[in-house]
Amino acid sequence: MDHDSYEDIPRERADFLARDYSRGFIHYCGMKAELIRKGYVQSRLEIGEEHRQQDGFIHAGVMATMSDHTAGYAAFTRVPEEYQILTVEFKINFLRPAYGEALVCRSRVLRGGNRILIAESEVSDRRGNEEALAAKALITLAAVHRDRLRSQDG
Amino acid sequence: MDHDSYEDIPRERADFLARDYSRGFIHYCGMKAELIRKGYVQSRLEIGEEHRQQDGFIHAGVMATMSDHTAGYAAFTRVPEEYQILTVEFKINFLRPAYGEALVCRSRVLRGGNRILIAESEVSDRRGNEEALAAKALITLAAVHRDRLRSQDG
Amino acid sequence: MDHDSYEDIPRERADFLARDYSRGFIHYCGMKAELIRKGYVQSRLEIGEEHRQQDGFIHAGVMATMSDHTAGYAAFTRVPEEYQILTVEFKINFLRPAYGEALVCRSRVLRGGNRILIAESEVSDRRGNEEALAAKALITLAAVHRDRLRSQDG
Amino acid sequence: MDHDSYEDIPRERADFLARDYSRGFIHYCGMKAELIRKGYVQSRLEIGEEHRQQDGFIHAGVMATMSDHTAGYAAFTRVPEEYQILTVEFKINFLRPAYGEALVCRSRVLRGGNRILIAESEVSDRRGNEEALAAKALITLAAVHRDRLRSQDG
Repeated sequence: MDHDSYEDIPRERADFLARDYSRGFIHYCGMKAELIRKGYVQSRLEIGEEHRQQDGFIHAGVMATMSDHTAGYAAFTRVPEEYQILTVEFKINFLRPAYGEALVCRSRVLRGGNRILIAESEVSDRRGNEEALAAKALITLAAVHRDRLRSQDG
Repeated sequence: MDHDSYEDIPRERADFLARDYSRGFIHYCGMKAELIRKGYVQSRLEIGEEHRQQDGFIHAGVMATMSDHTAGYAAFTRVPEEYQILTVEFKINFLRPAYGEALVCRSRVLRGGNRILIAESEVSDRRGNEEALAAKALITLAAVHRDRLRSQDG
Repeated sequence: MDHDSYEDIPRERADFLARDYSRGFIHYCGMKAELIRKGYVQSRLEIGEEHRQQDGFIHAGVMATMSDHTAGYAAFTRVPEEYQILTVEFKINFLRPAYGEALVCRSRVLRGGNRILIAESEVSDRRGNEEALAAKALITLAAVHRDRLRSQDG
Repeated sequence: MDHDSYEDIPRERADFLARDYSRGFIHYCGMKAELIRKGYVQSRLEIGEEHRQQDGFIHAGVMATMSDHTAGYAAFTRVPEEYQILTVEFKINFLRPAYGEALVCRSRVLRGGNRILIAESEVSDRRGNEEALAAKALITLAAVHRDRLRSQDG
């Protein structure tokens, strides 16, 4: 995924989304948005001991969370500001164990829409100056008007 | 999923798996195994502010992590002790937003095997005395002999 | 999945859906709806040589098609008659090779809704008097008003 | 996916795989391999009435079958000749309805291996001189030695 092929979005919106990205569980995990374009978001996580599993590898749940959340923000860049994004479902394949010092996630919208959006995410494991593709995900997202959000529970 | 239909496993193995369940990222998230049977594991998470996302709902990544990890330990109960379990991939559908005070995850092995295992997980949102099914996942796992684990990276 | 726990739908609607089930590709494949309840559909396929793959097993694509289509008709029973159902995505795990003389697919709606529905399907391989669970799928479906259907392409 | 970046495989092996591609259900559906490289296969289907569903769109099951099968043959190019490929699971997202006169599927191996391989497939809808991306899939495959194949059922 080459981010140069994606257009900029208004600076104010990009700044808002970057701050909004790192709240709650994502803040707790330490993930940060580092590049936001129209239909594309790149995020980063510096790995600590709290991100690993029993064998010392980075936990699959960390990569899944990052893939889902980053795809969600890529979707945010494709809908009007009064819409929220909810994850309908996602699927993630783990290509090789990750054990490096950082993860980089690149997400892009494959299909926009004002109701359902489809995105894909790639998570790379940073090992010194090298990157190895560690996981790939396909994500289905729903755009829901802010006023309808609470009524999603039924 | 009714856990009564699953056999016990040896007490020592169950105790080991329960302790092993809550390490690294899972310990950081606060998830705990509360019932371990042959081919079945139930886990629990008391929800705090750090598990929520920007709208106050429990983050999809929390449910995904719990679905994956609990399925992994259900798989551990079906392989010899010298085998480790790695997640090959999983897919999770979010059925309704979760906002309760705890999550309960129930995972069962649909298909055992000494190389590939398939499991499913259901995550329920505890709201007072009620439970609402919040997410359902299908997980593919690989059993890898301890001695071959490091060689998984290629 | 026990179909007895699902309510009947009006006879006329059930008859319409049963006929509608077997058109185009599904007719070509030979799949038939054999039980339609509210939120539940069971279908059947008598296996011929044309359903197998290079090793003699029933092709994964046959089970995938049946899982998707049967889930779609389970969704039809949960929306008003002027709505059509489109598959947004699905995921299917193959639990063991299928080689029997018929397949039976049971699909149920896990989560209804007037925009997005979630269903699961189980495909069993009939071998004489026995059935083996051969595949399990999770399916995301969109309900689209008949008048908006052509505008789905963008 | 640019096929030029994939190496050729021996002519004899490519011819064998191209013939082997179109057997049983795949022959019945009319799908053909048209380009086979190391880790990459492109296939084609001329659309007839038998591939459509009740609304005139190409059935999701057709695209799912093509995504799975083409990925399987991309995997065949990455394993020794005495190995067979079985689909463990796949997930497919439908990006827009397909209604053109042909489908083209491009599959590439994301992660090789002598036990588990991961591939992705993209299905495009040919409409005159244009192609629209209609579906994208992630597929998990198992390489099984020919002699162990029958014992997969348990």
